[in-house]
Amino acid sequence: MNLVKELSMFAPLTPRVSEILSWYKGENLGVLNNLARLLNSGSLAGTGKLVILPVDQGFEHGPVRSFGPNPAAFDPRYHFELAMESGCNAYAAPFGQLAASAGDFIGRIPVIVKINNSDSLFSNAAPISAVTCSIKDCVKLGATAVGFTIYPGSNARKEMYEEVRELGEEARSYGLPMIVWSYARGEQISKEGETAIDVIAYSAHIAAQLGAHVVKVKPPTAHIEQAAAKKAYEQAGISVATLADRVRNVVQSTFNGRRVVIFSGGESKGDEQLLSEVKEIHAGGGFGSIMGRNAFQRSRADGLKLLRGVISTFGGN
Amino acid sequence: MNLVKELSMFAPLTPRVSEILSWYKGENLGVLNNLARLLNSGSLAGTGKLVILPVDQGFEHGPVRSFGPNPAAFDPRYHFELAMESGCNAYAAPFGQLAASAGDFIGRIPVIVKINNSDSLFSNAAPISAVTCSIKDCVKLGATAVGFTIYPGSNARKEMYEEVRELGEEARSYGLPMIVWSYARGEQISKEGETAIDVIAYSAHIAAQLGAHVVKVKPPTAHIEQAAAKKAYEQAGISVATLADRVRNVVQSTFNGRRVVIFSGGESKGDEQLLSEVKEIHAGGGFGSIMGRNAFQRSRADGLKLLRGVISTFGGN
Amino acid sequence: MNLVKELSMFAPLTPRVSEILSWYKGENLGVLNNLARLLNSGSLAGTGKLVILPVDQGFEHGPVRSFGPNPAAFDPRYHFELAMESGCNAYAAPFGQLAASAGDFIGRIPVIVKINNSDSLFSNAAPISAVTCSIKDCVKLGATAVGFTIYPGSNARKEMYEEVRELGEEARSYGLPMIVWSYARGEQISKEGETAIDVIAYSAHIAAQLGAHVVKVKPPTAHIEQAAAKKAYEQAGISVATLADRVRNVVQSTFNGRRVVIFSGGESKGDEQLLSEVKEIHAGGGFGSIMGRNAFQRSRADGLKLLRGVISTFGGN
Amino acid sequence: MNLVKELSMFAPLTPRVSEILSWYKGENLGVLNNLARLLNSGSLAGTGKLVILPVDQGFEHGPVRSFGPNPAAFDPRYHFELAMESGCNAYAAPFGQLAASAGDFIGRIPVIVKINNSDSLFSNAAPISAVTCSIKDCVKLGATAVGFTIYPGSNARKEMYEEVRELGEEARSYGLPMIVWSYARGEQISKEGETAIDVIAYSAHIAAQLGAHVVKVKPPTAHIEQAAAKKAYEQAGISVATLADRVRNVVQSTFNGRRVVIFSGGESKGDEQLLSEVKEIHAGGGFGSIMGRNAFQRSRADGLKLLRGVISTFGGN
Amino acid sequence: MNLVKELSMFAPLTPRVSEILSWYKGENLGVLNNLARLLNSGSLAGTGKLVILPVDQGFEHGPVRSFGPNPAAFDPRYHFELAMESGCNAYAAPFGQLAASAGDFIGRIPVIVKINNSDSLFSNAAPISAVTCSIKDCVKLGATAVGFTIYPGSNARKEMYEEVRELGEEARSYGLPMIVWSYARGEQISKEGETAIDVIAYSAHIAAQLGAHVVKVKPPTAHIEQAAAKKAYEQAGISVATLADRVRNVVQSTFNGRRVVIFSGGESKGDEQLLSEVKEIHAGGGFGSIMGRNAFQRSRADGLKLLRGVISTFGGN
Repeated sequence: MNLVKELSMFAPLTPRVSEILSWYKGENLGVLNNLARLLNSGSLAGTGKLVILPVDQGFEHGPVRSFGPNPAAFDPRYHFELAMESGCNAYAAPFGQLAASAGDFIGRIPVIVKINNSDSLFSNAAPISAVTCSIKDCVKLGATAVGFTIYPGSNARKEMYEEVRELGEEARSYGLPMIVWSYARGEQISKEGETAIDVIAYSAHIAAQLGAHVVKVKPPTAHIEQAAAKKAYEQAGISVATLADRVRNVVQSTFNGRRVVIFSGGESKGDEQLLSEVKEIHAGGGFGSIMGRNAFQRSRADGLKLLRGVISTFGGN
Repeated sequence: MNLVKELSMFAPLTPRVSEILSWYKGENLGVLNNLARLLNSGSLAGTGKLVILPVDQGFEHGPVRSFGPNPAAFDPRYHFELAMESGCNAYAAPFGQLAASAGDFIGRIPVIVKINNSDSLFSNAAPISAVTCSIKDCVKLGATAVGFTIYPGSNARKEMYEEVRELGEEARSYGLPMIVWSYARGEQISKEGETAIDVIAYSAHIAAQLGAHVVKVKPPTAHIEQAAAKKAYEQAGISVATLADRVRNVVQSTFNGRRVVIFSGGESKGDEQLLSEVKEIHAGGGFGSIMGRNAFQRSRADGLKLLRGVISTFGGN
Repeated sequence: MNLVKELSMFAPLTPRVSEILSWYKGENLGVLNNLARLLNSGSLAGTGKLVILPVDQGFEHGPVRSFGPNPAAFDPRYHFELAMESGCNAYAAPFGQLAASAGDFIGRIPVIVKINNSDSLFSNAAPISAVTCSIKDCVKLGATAVGFTIYPGSNARKEMYEEVRELGEEARSYGLPMIVWSYARGEQISKEGETAIDVIAYSAHIAAQLGAHVVKVKPPTAHIEQAAAKKAYEQAGISVATLADRVRNVVQSTFNGRRVVIFSGGESKGDEQLLSEVKEIHAGGGFGSIMGRNAFQRSRADGLKLLRGVISTFGGN
Repeated sequence: MNLVKELSMFAPLTPRVSEILSWYKGENLGVLNNLARLLNSGSLAGTGKLVILPVDQGFEHGPVRSFGPNPAAFDPRYHFELAMESGCNAYAAPFGQLAASAGDFIGRIPVIVKINNSDSLFSNAAPISAVTCSIKDCVKLGATAVGFTIYPGSNARKEMYEEVRELGEEARSYGLPMIVWSYARGEQISKEGETAIDVIAYSAHIAAQLGAHVVKVKPPTAHIEQAAAKKAYEQAGISVATLADRVRNVVQSTFNGRRVVIFSGGESKGDEQLLSEVKEIHAGGGFGSIMGRNAFQRSRADGLKLLRGVISTFGGN
Repeated sequence: MNLVKELSMFAPLTPRVSEILSWYKGENLGVLNNLARLLNSGSLAGTGKLVILPVDQGFEHGPVRSFGPNPAAFDPRYHFELAMESGCNAYAAPFGQLAASAGDFIGRIPVIVKINNSDSLFSNAAPISAVTCSIKDCVKLGATAVGFTIYPGSNARKEMYEEVRELGEEARSYGLPMIVWSYARGEQISKEGETAIDVIAYSAHIAAQLGAHVVKVKPPTAHIEQAAAKKAYEQAGISVATLADRVRNVVQSTFNGRRVVIFSGGESKGDEQLLSEVKEIHAGGGFGSIMGRNAFQRSRADGLKLLRGVISTFGGN
């Protein structure tokens, strides 16, 4: 069933994984171990690239919008299987969904608990997610890392950043790395601005500033939202013409590549378009993809094919 | 007095109850024991179905609106008797009401403490219940489970979800399962939308994501509230024509049936209409009913008759 | 498989059980519920009598001395099955043994965790047991009560009584009744004195004074250990001629019967001798028996026959 | 460098590993994950057998007595390499030794922190180890399990058992399984008695009663130390003639095989003698070996050869 | 005033200091910074060698025995000046002494607070020091590290090791490295044995196992105290003929040199003898010296000359 070509057990870290871990000096060995576990599992093991299957859309957009297109995906075990068969590095989901399935997959793929979540039954002018499980709950679930969402641009940013900081500190004390989903939105950001290159680069930077070990953003467009930023991009001669250019700028903006930045697939699209985006992410030095809807809203065969295409683009096999 | 056909004491779990418990791997044995206790009491013992008598309407709507129609119901002992005589699995009520009656029913029917509650003397645009007893209070009452209400769609959802999460974690640490009443309401949801199929399915999903072991929602109507959801239902070809269809969709939305979902009776109705609803809930794969007003606002004889009808519909005797 | 004639579910407490519970006014309802659960399970349900299968001999005397005579008993699941099939009220064992088996008997017979234990690899002049699990561990195991051993007469009595008192207080706060095994021993008590009527009566009294809800002692002999006591028995004209007389005196000594006192079977004996002892315990007003070695060191068939004989002597069926 | 034949990544648990995990129902998924990690690493991955390299002799016997015979072993990194190259499941050592080396082996072999230790500069009539690191220290080291030593038979057993119990509860709350080294010694046990079959079986039983997930004892001799035990062995007709017989009795004494029991190699011996012992351990149903001195006091080549021989005896490759 | 040739501020770490810090992977950057501060101050800055002036003799032996020979040393400021003028890396003293002087030397030489101490007004068969200040006190004093004394061989070792472990964990959490003075003594160690090579090597090993970043022992003699050790030294062919040989063995015994081990000067001696000892310590790979009485019981000029001689022997200037 498993087509993944694997890293030899007890093999030394690859030079690339060692290099990546060297960016996290000062973290305890528990955090480093778990970062290594993420980087050493699945088809991309050892390459320093990460492809993660995230399934929090049930919570974020509602179950039918999320799983209706592929009803097998209503079952929380489906996603564990999809992530493992495709050779992803890890599977990410909210607490309840994991509580209803992780016991059937003991000792297998690394699990990331998405510990704060929003729903679409209320749309807040000052968006902020609710913390829906404790760090101790994650430890007891056997998690390898924890994930948080922040909304830079929200009027609630102070509460949100402080929450993430505090939970992140607790997580690190248990050896759990923190992955931050950074999605700009708020009253002063236009819809188009949410994926503008300046805003995405800035959002990734903020996540890293809050202590994220891994940062997740959307693929940026060539739009530049803020006038002051526009001037700066022009003066610096930073090209934002291709997605690869823009990914390069986001990676640069995240401590010049000393933090792992991965990119979402965004709204559902055709395979070709997605894989062409992923090629540009790879070309721009992106560390990987996090692909949910595009993976689990297809049939199992098509979802597997897509994820394997993505993984293969990043050098997995 | 007791017409309940009983499960043999010390009998092995039925295959169905064993299957249900297998969805909760990783919970401590205290939680599993209490889940088994709920599933193994009353006329439905061993069937995997649950009928609960909930009486929090005194708090929620005021005593006279609640108990005026059947003054015997002003006495908190009335409900214990009604629940036991009819063969319900459990009785649920707020702290004070139990404090004033549970001492007269030691060692009998399982009790669920409803630990947060709202009243109708103030109507909040951002609804949120008050926590009216501690988890330790529940332990000292001899509770078998705790119940919370959440209002997905409320502007207060962050505070509310976090409260439930934290109390739920504490409850589990004492071996108490958590039952979440999930009632969407709020500024951005129309009155009709509160029982719309998309909203109900979403509300059940959120409760399960917060770690609920048992979820309680209202029977959904065929209305679809959110435009994006409407499109998703249509594209997925999910039928919402009959109540059974809709119940099926709610169960599917709650981790594909890997969490126990039960349905309320809603506003008072005639027996026939109620039982016909219950039949559809059963046909759609619902795990049971939670029926308050319709039971205790009738005369004792009529209330018993109705509850027994409901229980019998789910396969009890 | 189960021959137990059962109490009707949700049936009111019997007058005798109600009377017993009336001795514990002021305890929280959780404690009373669990006392009722003990009194309402098994073949003796509702009679106010208790027969418990205790299996801590592996810890106390070593595994081969305990289970060698009936090797099936090495398996910790054996004892659950024996207790249920015979119709005991409850099964008592140390933490580890329950941790290795209780998960296979969710929702069935009430479990008592024996939370302090001694072994026979060291024999202490001032005997005192080690606390081998926490009260929280018991809660998480789904326990119905906790058990402690005290050694009145030990030079370590201060530490021991205080330990029991403190753990008992914590147990009660979680709704767990405390059962105290009270075995006099120590430098100033002769071997014969350990089961002397005066010493047993005194030991039972001390256990009750420490807050025990249920007290367990050995069947007393007619020997009177302490000179002052001898005089007192004579002056009061208290007969200690028959075991029934002596049991009556022990019950009287335990708040005139306002605490549940049960008697062990002691070292292994023939069926006839045991049942004749049990008859006297019953005749003297003893509340029941706790029978370990005599039950599990026989073949399964013989053990069942014996336990059913004991239960039947106390009025069970 | 690595000759280990490996279990496929993301492969389902083998039936044997699933069976073993089924003995630990009620533990959180973190504990189960880490147990699975121990059972799924190294050459024995998936077989349900465990071979561990323990190196606490520097602390216990002094550095020169421990590492003088093979000076390469003074370097704490040596042992990581030896454990990995030979294909052990895990490496166990005290805190300081791991703190000085684990950072060079991030993400590789599972590490067990031996959290209490004794030294030989003082010999105590009532032996008890000192706790030399906290559970939080273990979490921060990225440990997969924690190890404790107990000395049943010591006059300090009460303090010792209670210490282990408390630290074990904390460890489990962080998802760390507990491994107990159980070595009887004390005033009332003869030198020969320390490895007597009755004493070893009893010591293993006590460790399991204290909640150990894995128990480690010395290979028992045919000597029976306690008179009462001698009688019990004879009456039960339990053969102790061969090491295989005795191992079978130890496994039986540890909840009839429902806890993992492994055996040390003891004092340094020739390869042939050791492997013949290991064959008997395997034949008797032992779960594996823990081999320290015999492995690291040989040259690297000889140590590897021996460990591979041991692993191969248990079915590894 | 200061003749010390200094390391250029902001200069990169020397390769040797980088190498030393690489042994402490997993420590937080606060600990690493403070270790670097110790290694980068004074005349030995950057060499990886450490010479420390310790002045706890007032507490340990009484003020007049300590400072009578050079009354200027009664003034706590004297030692700051001596340490700085001679070019030591750091100055170590008990809390009160620092509290009375450190405020006059703000921002100057690194300070080590010796947080446990013994006095000579009572001599204990089971020696153990009293903790005479808190870790927070050290933080508030601006300390660069904390120091503890342990007495391996003492009957109080359990309490002592656990105290050090716990305080060490707290110290590290504030970024303070821990330096352990390890002096074997106790009922089972002869006077001569306290400085025996086997005992010193073992004591250094124990300190490192307890998590010491820097270990301080006395220069070992060629005596071997324990019979088992004697055999081990002979079999391993470890030479203990010269002090250099013995220092080499101590360094080897402390994780093969992966922990910093420094040596005291011991009782007062002549300059020549002292410097010749220091030469051997250097030749054997010792990391430095800690010299108290021999420095401050001479006149200021003689003390300075001696310390500069020591520092120069280790390569300082």
